[in-house]
Amino acid sequence: MIDILDRVRNKALQAKIVTAEEAAAFFKPDMNVAMSGFTASAYPKAVPLALAERMKKEPFAINLWTGASTGPELDDALASVHGIKQRLPYQTDKALRNEINDGSVDYLDLHLSESAQLSRCGYLGHVDVAVVEACAITEEGNIIPTTSLGNAASYVQSADVVIVEVNTSQPLDLEGMHDVYIPMDPPNRLPIPIVKANDRVGTTYIPCTPEKIKYIVPCDIPDHTRPLKPIDEDSKKMSEFTLEFLNKEIEAGRMPKNLLPLQSGVGNVANAVIAGFVDSDLKDLTVYTEVIQDGMLDLIDAGKLNFASGTAFSPSPEGMARFYKDVAKYKKYLLLRPEEISNSPEVVHRLGVIAMNTAIEVDIYGNVNSTHITGTKMMNGIGGSGDFARNAYLTIFYTPSIAKEGKISAVVPFCSHIDHTEHDVDIIITEQGIADLRGKAPRERALEIINNCAHPDYRPILLDYFNRATEATKHAHTPHILEEALSFHERFVKTGSMAK
Amino acid sequence: MIDILDRVRNKALQAKIVTAEEAAAFFKPDMNVAMSGFTASAYPKAVPLALAERMKKEPFAINLWTGASTGPELDDALASVHGIKQRLPYQTDKALRNEINDGSVDYLDLHLSESAQLSRCGYLGHVDVAVVEACAITEEGNIIPTTSLGNAASYVQSADVVIVEVNTSQPLDLEGMHDVYIPMDPPNRLPIPIVKANDRVGTTYIPCTPEKIKYIVPCDIPDHTRPLKPIDEDSKKMSEFTLEFLNKEIEAGRMPKNLLPLQSGVGNVANAVIAGFVDSDLKDLTVYTEVIQDGMLDLIDAGKLNFASGTAFSPSPEGMARFYKDVAKYKKYLLLRPEEISNSPEVVHRLGVIAMNTAIEVDIYGNVNSTHITGTKMMNGIGGSGDFARNAYLTIFYTPSIAKEGKISAVVPFCSHIDHTEHDVDIIITEQGIADLRGKAPRERALEIINNCAHPDYRPILLDYFNRATEATKHAHTPHILEEALSFHERFVKTGSMAK
Repeated sequence: MIDILDRVRNKALQAKIVTAEEAAAFFKPDMNVAMSGFTASAYPKAVPLALAERMKKEPFAINLWTGASTGPELDDALASVHGIKQRLPYQTDKALRNEINDGSVDYLDLHLSESAQLSRCGYLGHVDVAVVEACAITEEGNIIPTTSLGNAASYVQSADVVIVEVNTSQPLDLEGMHDVYIPMDPPNRLPIPIVKANDRVGTTYIPCTPEKIKYIVPCDIPDHTRPLKPIDEDSKKMSEFTLEFLNKEIEAGRMPKNLLPLQSGVGNVANAVIAGFVDSDLKDLTVYTEVIQDGMLDLIDAGKLNFASGTAFSPSPEGMARFYKDVAKYKKYLLLRPEEISNSPEVVHRLGVIAMNTAIEVDIYGNVNSTHITGTKMMNGIGGSGDFARNAYLTIFYTPSIAKEGKISAVVPFCSHIDHTEHDVDIIITEQGIADLRGKAPRERALEIINNCAHPDYRPILLDYFNRATEATKHAHTPHILEEALSFHERFVKTGSMAK
Repeated sequence: MIDILDRVRNKALQAKIVTAEEAAAFFKPDMNVAMSGFTASAYPKAVPLALAERMKKEPFAINLWTGASTGPELDDALASVHGIKQRLPYQTDKALRNEINDGSVDYLDLHLSESAQLSRCGYLGHVDVAVVEACAITEEGNIIPTTSLGNAASYVQSADVVIVEVNTSQPLDLEGMHDVYIPMDPPNRLPIPIVKANDRVGTTYIPCTPEKIKYIVPCDIPDHTRPLKPIDEDSKKMSEFTLEFLNKEIEAGRMPKNLLPLQSGVGNVANAVIAGFVDSDLKDLTVYTEVIQDGMLDLIDAGKLNFASGTAFSPSPEGMARFYKDVAKYKKYLLLRPEEISNSPEVVHRLGVIAMNTAIEVDIYGNVNSTHITGTKMMNGIGGSGDFARNAYLTIFYTPSIAKEGKISAVVPFCSHIDHTEHDVDIIITEQGIADLRGKAPRERALEIINNCAHPDYRPILLDYFNRATEATKHAHTPHILEEALSFHERFVKTGSMAK
């Protein structure tokens, strides 16, 4: 208990230290429970595990609001005991996904930048309790966050009461790595005064008062971050196309030599693209993104990164170990902000971010599906992709041209669900090549996408569709044959393959 | 010629006054020609009419960039002689629409807020010449705009040369009604310092130098604005639902008593909704919108409007006459900004705008089609609807529940084209009622939309589709039967009616 007492710097607050089981007794059915966490970083662990244990004996469900996805001690633990009734704004958990797709969980798939405002403005009801992971609590009751900020600050502000899970596995060196700015809501909102990725505009802690803190729960479970997968050939090709394209933009005078701030999604392709930057001649790069992963540490070590701003620090276990070894060094380059700031349409547009995100599928006119399998089953959610894609200076979407050994084409006549419209997509990159949609009308885009991005096995049937649709509609603005628009998906559902 | 000389205040520039025919001789095939104009307001008239005459004898085509739609002396005149090769960012002209849908015009249907940046950043090539309507030219060569700003200021900045059409039918009293602010591009962009609808942050003129002006052309053709249609019963009902809903939001404490700044689209429903505000108990309203129409004058006369900011002043001929009678009075309440400011995601989000726009169709999950007829033919374009819908505090879409005497249902299983995704739509209003999608998962939204917004004639087949889709997908997140998702549209194309 020595370490936890050191971390609860307000002596009076030490009386509120309880076990996870005691804190778990606080929850009631249908409560709106808002938790910290963004990716498998900085989510509460002890309290949800204890809550799941309680729910096993005494079944009930809560509404669970977080920053984004979380680790298994939260989403998986609660979903496995059917303890979640409503979930927002994003998730990636298998058990939870199954419940979303069997009708037992109501999932609100929201733009991440909007989720804090939605929780404040009352559209979704009231935040009954906020549960946040902390490094420490200051004399004043302020909360020092850990490896992500997400919506934690806004949830603490809105909640009736706060339960703080003080995680002794998180190093106190994290203090100072955060910049907490909560905008006022309209009609009193002011400009967010960020003009560079490294601008500090807030506090290093989540403002809170001792009175608002109901319980403090010690926890020593580390973030359950995911190991890095090796970079596959397809991702490597997409990375090469990206660098080639961006260098051409620099040559043409359309980009500064150190580019504009980069945003990159999470996963294999994103890792490969960042690895490509590490090996490139580019330097003085800046990053204004959501999730900071291993690649950013590589960029720092290679002397290529000026600064990276995000809302979550979520490297692999190896990356985390590397970071912990020299926090003082890496901290100079990294900053975590609330997700309504990291993903802010205002700031993303002002800085002129280059947005690089992955798609599940794209259609021949440049619409993008980021969320649904065959139009019906939720995969993860839109996350921050729309925040960046809609407001970026340049919007790139990535997908391998095929999946499931060629049974699925990622280029289809008509997306089975649309999360990003043709108006918002500049560039599509697959391992086959790059489609530059800028300045092209839909019929021109179709040829660009089919010829450059579709897999050769699917090119003939896509071209055939486009040509027949063009003929049938007498060269309409967006040629389609309605009966066949979703035929690739229909065929996949019926035969297990989109191929004819 | 006395009036035109008075309006060209720089004596040396008077030597550049030429006829429209002389100016029209300047254009060459494939030039990128950027013109002023937003709705049928402040577009050049004499020069395009003379250019169309020239094209009749000597066929060639240009790329035409404007603020948005324009009047018949521009779009119709040039489209009628096949003088347009590429068109952006928006249009509403019948002849042009036909050419877009027969493959002879490449139409770039862009978010209006992004069109100026796109013209500056070089993705679309260079602005060869800007043609702008003016009230007058100052000693310094600066251009005093007329009834809209649109992209005129940015086009003048980017163009090699400028042709100014000085319109002597536009009163000089318009001077002072504009606020011209052109943001710097990334990485040097700063916050747009607007925190209230009436904040002035720029100049009252479009900055220009005498050297940049190639020709000055006198013109006395007035804006070809459209007469107001009487408010129909359906629109009146939608207006009533809007007021009822907003009053409930005020009662619930989710809106200030004078609401948040209003944005309203163009057309019948928008007129009816604004008329509803005129007759309501609401006061101290503010407007942060794109197009200012007659309703705003009514709100001023009723003492209910504190201020209206837009990019175009486009009332009916009667409204224009009313405005001209007392410009000094109305000017106190009205301001025109460049469209990248009137529609700025940053400012729209900051002010917390209530966005009210019309849809062509909505689907049962809340996706919206604003542009395409049966998924293939372009109607007008997305215009500014995405700028507002994506960034507003509250996003409302309107559509009558049926069209063509019931042969078309505006509520469909799956939109045949998607311009606004389920993530961006809060409220749908038809003459049948209001669907509140906030905080609802897709399956809940479907029942809300079908039961409250669909026409009773279509409710049974929509419910049947939803129920069978739910069954077939075992309660997936977004139930669909792929083979039937577009069946309403297929039936309409085949039989002339969506009804079974």
